[in-house]
Amino acid sequence: MADNGGKKPNANAKAKGSGGGGGKKKEVKKETGLGLTKKKDENFGEWYSEVVVHGEMIEYYDISGCYILRPWTMAIWETMQTFFDAEIKKMRIKNCYFPLFVSPAVLEKEKDHIEGFAPEVAWVTKSGKSELEVPIAIRPTSETVMYPYYSKWIRGHRDLPLKLNQWCNVVRWEFSNPTPFIRSREFLWQEGHTAFATKEEADKEVLEILELYRRIYEEYLAIPVVKGKKSENEKFAGGLYTTSVEGATSHCLGQNFAKMFDITFENEKGEKAMIWQNSWAYSTRTIGVMVMVHGDDRGLVLPPKVASVQAIVIPVPYKDVDTEAIFDACLKTVETLNEAGFRVEADLRDNYSPGWKYSHWEMKGVPLRIEIGPKDLKNNQVRCARRDNSAKVDIPMNNLVEEVKEMFAKIQQNLFDVAKQKRDASIQVTRTWDEFTEALNEKKLILAPWCDEKEVEEDVKARTKGEIGAAKSLCSPFDQPDLPEGTLCFASGKPAKKWTYWGRSY
Amino acid sequence: MADNGGKKPNANAKAKGSGGGGGKKKEVKKETGLGLTKKKDENFGEWYSEVVVHGEMIEYYDISGCYILRPWTMAIWETMQTFFDAEIKKMRIKNCYFPLFVSPAVLEKEKDHIEGFAPEVAWVTKSGKSELEVPIAIRPTSETVMYPYYSKWIRGHRDLPLKLNQWCNVVRWEFSNPTPFIRSREFLWQEGHTAFATKEEADKEVLEILELYRRIYEEYLAIPVVKGKKSENEKFAGGLYTTSVEGATSHCLGQNFAKMFDITFENEKGEKAMIWQNSWAYSTRTIGVMVMVHGDDRGLVLPPKVASVQAIVIPVPYKDVDTEAIFDACLKTVETLNEAGFRVEADLRDNYSPGWKYSHWEMKGVPLRIEIGPKDLKNNQVRCARRDNSAKVDIPMNNLVEEVKEMFAKIQQNLFDVAKQKRDASIQVTRTWDEFTEALNEKKLILAPWCDEKEVEEDVKARTKGEIGAAKSLCSPFDQPDLPEGTLCFASGKPAKKWTYWGRSY
Repeated sequence: MADNGGKKPNANAKAKGSGGGGGKKKEVKKETGLGLTKKKDENFGEWYSEVVVHGEMIEYYDISGCYILRPWTMAIWETMQTFFDAEIKKMRIKNCYFPLFVSPAVLEKEKDHIEGFAPEVAWVTKSGKSELEVPIAIRPTSETVMYPYYSKWIRGHRDLPLKLNQWCNVVRWEFSNPTPFIRSREFLWQEGHTAFATKEEADKEVLEILELYRRIYEEYLAIPVVKGKKSENEKFAGGLYTTSVEGATSHCLGQNFAKMFDITFENEKGEKAMIWQNSWAYSTRTIGVMVMVHGDDRGLVLPPKVASVQAIVIPVPYKDVDTEAIFDACLKTVETLNEAGFRVEADLRDNYSPGWKYSHWEMKGVPLRIEIGPKDLKNNQVRCARRDNSAKVDIPMNNLVEEVKEMFAKIQQNLFDVAKQKRDASIQVTRTWDEFTEALNEKKLILAPWCDEKEVEEDVKARTKGEIGAAKSLCSPFDQPDLPEGTLCFASGKPAKKWTYWGRSY
Repeated sequence: MADNGGKKPNANAKAKGSGGGGGKKKEVKKETGLGLTKKKDENFGEWYSEVVVHGEMIEYYDISGCYILRPWTMAIWETMQTFFDAEIKKMRIKNCYFPLFVSPAVLEKEKDHIEGFAPEVAWVTKSGKSELEVPIAIRPTSETVMYPYYSKWIRGHRDLPLKLNQWCNVVRWEFSNPTPFIRSREFLWQEGHTAFATKEEADKEVLEILELYRRIYEEYLAIPVVKGKKSENEKFAGGLYTTSVEGATSHCLGQNFAKMFDITFENEKGEKAMIWQNSWAYSTRTIGVMVMVHGDDRGLVLPPKVASVQAIVIPVPYKDVDTEAIFDACLKTVETLNEAGFRVEADLRDNYSPGWKYSHWEMKGVPLRIEIGPKDLKNNQVRCARRDNSAKVDIPMNNLVEEVKEMFAKIQQNLFDVAKQKRDASIQVTRTWDEFTEALNEKKLILAPWCDEKEVEEDVKARTKGEIGAAKSLCSPFDQPDLPEGTLCFASGKPAKKWTYWGRSY
């Protein structure tokens, strides 16, 4: 759980930005030194800022909290998008596009909801040199943008379920600690908004979508996640309950918005009834979590399933040796692997040494490096170096496709396994307040028995508020450990109702 | 050419909008009367507003000039997007995402460019309750957003070409005649931004992209287009020259932006040189053109290649006849056609008559209706009705897939042919000022010999400025008719340099 990492990216790291005007002078460093200057374990925040920039995922922008998503990032986003979009289409969810702008009257219709978002809303007040008559908000999320029209479109039970999704940008003008992917003022996401005749159908879909989010994290990004339910304090503003995996959230909104926006239908008995709604979203934040989980002191580490270049082929010519034959072998290797459906490129640039290229592609996190030198050529083989664990192995050319395929699968699995080991090792079970605060200071992912009372969570937050960031509940896992009769809440001392994960907000 | 259609959508038509708050009462009409109240030939503007709403492509939004793109629209957009995105990826153009926001200093860096866009720029001045220190613009297009970073990323000839594209929303806060798709304050588009070492490479790409735009119009939307070059007056603000097909534009920017944003590189001789740039875009406007070209008094007419439902299967049960067998045959037909890769659905609703369903799916423009009644069941056939020309034909079930496939191809081709006939018939060659103004009044697409002087176009604009909208040049077709020596310009009487299309701006 990244929001439990406690390794707060340093806000000052954004000073690395370009300043927007081009700023060629500032970039000399990038050209002379390839490596990262900060270590992940020593200065997580600055390491993160360096790795996303040097890995060419992000460019800092001259407006604070806004970031340029470079092709290296977009390829990952598109892979996840292709998967998710196909899955929701199977569920007969359809794509639409609602406007970026919301009028204030509509935005403010649901009170709890707007309270959650109001401080972060960006307002357009001018066009050209004219003042607008009424300021117009930029969507921070689209519940209030969409639901007036759900009211219009839904009349009878035959109009249900209504299941829409949109891929779009949203804006939340946050002021604290802007961080690429994790906390940016504009970000890309999908938001699904569905309406049902019954709570049962809504409940079922909440979990189906949550399962897709789990698959994105576990199968694509190789990140183990915990499915669970958010506390009353942490649930979606205006919703009934929120389920989550690692920042991707699937909410049941209940009938609260339906009431506010008058979304009713005539049911099969001819009676007027109120709909049940869900909304669910995952964003480019997932990519930041992936960088944080897998990256190391040499740069990015990308899982093969999402890497836009899965293997990079690098010629290793020697003096007095047939360079052209080596280059040809490189091209042949790329061709063979591309034909087999893999995303593979060769780096044949003549102005960089093989060593420089190794560092460059390691920085960019390419899962597999394939080297071809005179000896490889002679033995009709290639040398493979794994990015995840640095293991090297020679592969005969005549079994190239099979072995590379297997290697990608192993890398994908190993990234997941290592991440899971680390995650499991960071979990600390605490049963008392003292254990809790100690674990909190050690930046652990805390699992504690809890009474599940709103006031108690507020109290925990207040009591831990300090330099390192207040504690908050992350989720109560669906998969609950045993909770013997008589177990007490770590915070209130009342009877515990469930095990809940806790960490620090930042 | 839609912007020559001269059939100005009526601004008042937007009064059909929902008013944003739901407004169920207003919708009674939609439920009781299915048909359009306006005719395409008699009141084009109101017909258009009706057809996009009743065809369920658009919902009017409570902010003027903003529209909801419903799933029926998004499916068409996604089909075009899938085609274009795959084609540009073959050209090694990569997707990226730059921020929605631009700081004023950067926006205003290129003078001609900002003059073209300044009156339409929307400004964010507040977040939550705080005033921003500096107002921030929402991108009307991304040249000035991107090029400071091109300056940063491009150093040597090996960094070229740099070819990026993004799929995004842009905002142009226009005040006159908001019209769904055609003139909306926010719209979706792709914008490509490429940089080359030489003008030759840039020139070549401009035409490659223009060819993709032609294919979108002609192969997907079944709309004949003319490839041509814009006049100096009508070219992209700040660019060198603009090529276009029907609103989709491919610009060579020359070195103007490179100068302003200091985008230079070290060439192969080690000398400092300036890059050559292109930008190119097509937007959801294309969908509006499609509606205008093919739609009729019964509603939308969609080309099979972009229709999200290519055929709708409708049971036609009779009293005392085995309804279940008819329904089964409908489902079997859908299954067979889906398995063959077609997008086909059945409308088995029991609360609507077959006649109502016919009208409903005609309004939505589904290319083919497949009816199954007792006689069809008995004869092991289906009855097909084409949306484009109302032709009906019986197809034996045992040859269903082949014949439906052929019929889709015929419909696609016929839509193109009919549109081409109409377009050709609307072209009027004019050689004198009197002929020109007469043709302009008749809303013709005018082809006239022209001296190609900036001042003359400005003069034409000034002299035709009136109630019906000033004339402007549309493009000079690449495919030029003969221009005999001594031909004079229709407007200035000077020697003509080229044939140019003219129409009215609105």
